[in-house]
Amino acid sequence: MVGGGQLARMTAAAAVGLGATFRVLSESENESAALVTHDVTVGSHLSLSDISAFAAGCDVITFDHEHVPGPILAKLESDGILVRPGGGALRYTQDKLAMRERLIELGVPCPRFAPVSTLADVAAFARGTWPVVLKAVSGGYDGKGVWVCESAEEAEEVLALGIALMAEEFVPFRRELAALVARSPSGQGAAYPVVQTVQVDGICREVIAPAPGLDPDVAVEAEAMALKIAAELGVTGLLAVELFETADGLLVNELALRPHNTGHWTIEGARTSQFEQHLRAVLDLPLGSPALAAPYTAMANVLGGDDGASRFDIYDRYLHVMAADPAVKIHIYGKEVRPGRKIGHVTVPGDGARSDPAELADRARRAASYLRWGKEDGD
Amino acid sequence: MVGGGQLARMTAAAAVGLGATFRVLSESENESAALVTHDVTVGSHLSLSDISAFAAGCDVITFDHEHVPGPILAKLESDGILVRPGGGALRYTQDKLAMRERLIELGVPCPRFAPVSTLADVAAFARGTWPVVLKAVSGGYDGKGVWVCESAEEAEEVLALGIALMAEEFVPFRRELAALVARSPSGQGAAYPVVQTVQVDGICREVIAPAPGLDPDVAVEAEAMALKIAAELGVTGLLAVELFETADGLLVNELALRPHNTGHWTIEGARTSQFEQHLRAVLDLPLGSPALAAPYTAMANVLGGDDGASRFDIYDRYLHVMAADPAVKIHIYGKEVRPGRKIGHVTVPGDGARSDPAELADRARRAASYLRWGKEDGD
Repeated sequence: MVGGGQLARMTAAAAVGLGATFRVLSESENESAALVTHDVTVGSHLSLSDISAFAAGCDVITFDHEHVPGPILAKLESDGILVRPGGGALRYTQDKLAMRERLIELGVPCPRFAPVSTLADVAAFARGTWPVVLKAVSGGYDGKGVWVCESAEEAEEVLALGIALMAEEFVPFRRELAALVARSPSGQGAAYPVVQTVQVDGICREVIAPAPGLDPDVAVEAEAMALKIAAELGVTGLLAVELFETADGLLVNELALRPHNTGHWTIEGARTSQFEQHLRAVLDLPLGSPALAAPYTAMANVLGGDDGASRFDIYDRYLHVMAADPAVKIHIYGKEVRPGRKIGHVTVPGDGARSDPAELADRARRAASYLRWGKEDGD
Repeated sequence: MVGGGQLARMTAAAAVGLGATFRVLSESENESAALVTHDVTVGSHLSLSDISAFAAGCDVITFDHEHVPGPILAKLESDGILVRPGGGALRYTQDKLAMRERLIELGVPCPRFAPVSTLADVAAFARGTWPVVLKAVSGGYDGKGVWVCESAEEAEEVLALGIALMAEEFVPFRRELAALVARSPSGQGAAYPVVQTVQVDGICREVIAPAPGLDPDVAVEAEAMALKIAAELGVTGLLAVELFETADGLLVNELALRPHNTGHWTIEGARTSQFEQHLRAVLDLPLGSPALAAPYTAMANVLGGDDGASRFDIYDRYLHVMAADPAVKIHIYGKEVRPGRKIGHVTVPGDGARSDPAELADRARRAASYLRWGKEDGD
């Protein structure tokens, strides 16, 4: 796996059970996955020679993130290296304009969008209605590269960054959902139940699985849409489709071609975790059951606080959280704490008798909040 | 963790989520846990200097097995190293006669037993009724060190080994059960639901959790008995109590002070796996919920077959097993295949609608049998 973040870390744990030999290409010895993986190569995902040397010892390579440049992916593939997902699919996460155009071709409902490079372009797109969402065409994640502009003045500041931008309509959604599917090279697909997500400042804060009260027809539509996108884009591995639920139906917000924050609940809440599923897909093994392992499961992210805690201080907080709620599952990533940074998550699977989704989410939120301690960035 | 076997391997995976830095003392770089652990020290559990050097970098040490000699444990403890479980508790797994005597003191029901050193001793114990079980007082595991003698002649062969022996009555049990509990240094206890186990030649073959049709009073009795033994013996970490269910009630067969084969089902089948629970106990963290995550879960061991397969050939068999049953969870330990050796296990958690324990056990057995392929030793 190229990239040493928490997604690689949790994939490493899933590889233990499968007995698959797992190797990680990490920017340093101290990255999240490097701390727990036996076989670590230190190198850069931006370096063709680093990735080529790493890939030479692998049967197949896959990714913790979507930041490996397209030309490097193309060269690896032309060198005969198995790259899953391939560059042809990954380009849609690296070029959001190409992604939107492709989705429209496929008949997938999306927010209205347009490429913009001048204030006149933005004004023409806005038609006098603000806010307008400006997005970096490439390189954004976790709210970075997305600006909700309330006025032309705000748009002008973003345009001044001098990067390639696109405009999207601001969608007054009822709530956000996510559809997670896996697809294997041989074309098998598996869809997890659709979840409800809460994002704050573009960062996933909590997930309830499955999405409470979701119309079964809408759930089926979302799963079918995600499976269709995965097939049409030639995805191998996981595809997460972030969705807006609106009064007029579903709209696709973002795509991710890897294990995804909105799928962390699957470690406890589904029969096959998204990390095992991703490995099974990229190894071309039959996919595992995505069925629920609890009627409802809630997940809350632990973000770094502003109390100056180190990554070791967090252990002192375990005592309280574990004693208060023995069913909470803690996942800490071993990352240095910075305000607002994702440093872990907690999951609370429901039992038959205790499966009120709002109560589970409350318990997850409480545990995450205690682990975080200080105020987080943006609150 | 001292010892690099599969128990350490699965504990390593559990440590990832907790964010606990995990180190293993392994006899070689190729042992099961050494293959997946970031921080591996190669050394012998029989060497005081190896263990002392290893322990110097650890906050607390615990064990993959019970074979560290008592004098080494005593020296480590007198050097101020946190050893959990401690030597005072571990001695009862290293000296079965001491274990029996202690259990009798505690009023715990055990098979009739006696130390024996001559054929006259065995004959006096048998009172003309065969078979009689002879056991090595120290060092046995997985059926090694246990002989079911059908006659004085057979007993004579065992006596000829010249090792310290004890005799036990042969118990005509209805079935075998196991009670798994955890105890923290601060005295908190947690009991998993009592399971049914099937042993062949002293090796655990399959487990159904919880034990189907078990009288609730007997289940409570078994859990209470295990918690009492853990408290009285001063156990820190896990205690597995292997039990015979007989027409006249429960009898204790064996004790293990570590994660145990009869607890592997907890990875998928309980809210807290036995491996996480052991870590929480030895780190003096509050214990996790031992509640069921599925109405029933079946586990079957994968033993090495006699078809000459290497540890890599087994991957080809994944295709069939995973395609045939997407709910089967495979755990392969990365060990070289030898006939009859435990090289992995499979778990099948039941769903609400599909939770007939006999059917789950059948699916687990079928998957394990296919992974094994050849005939195993002893069949």
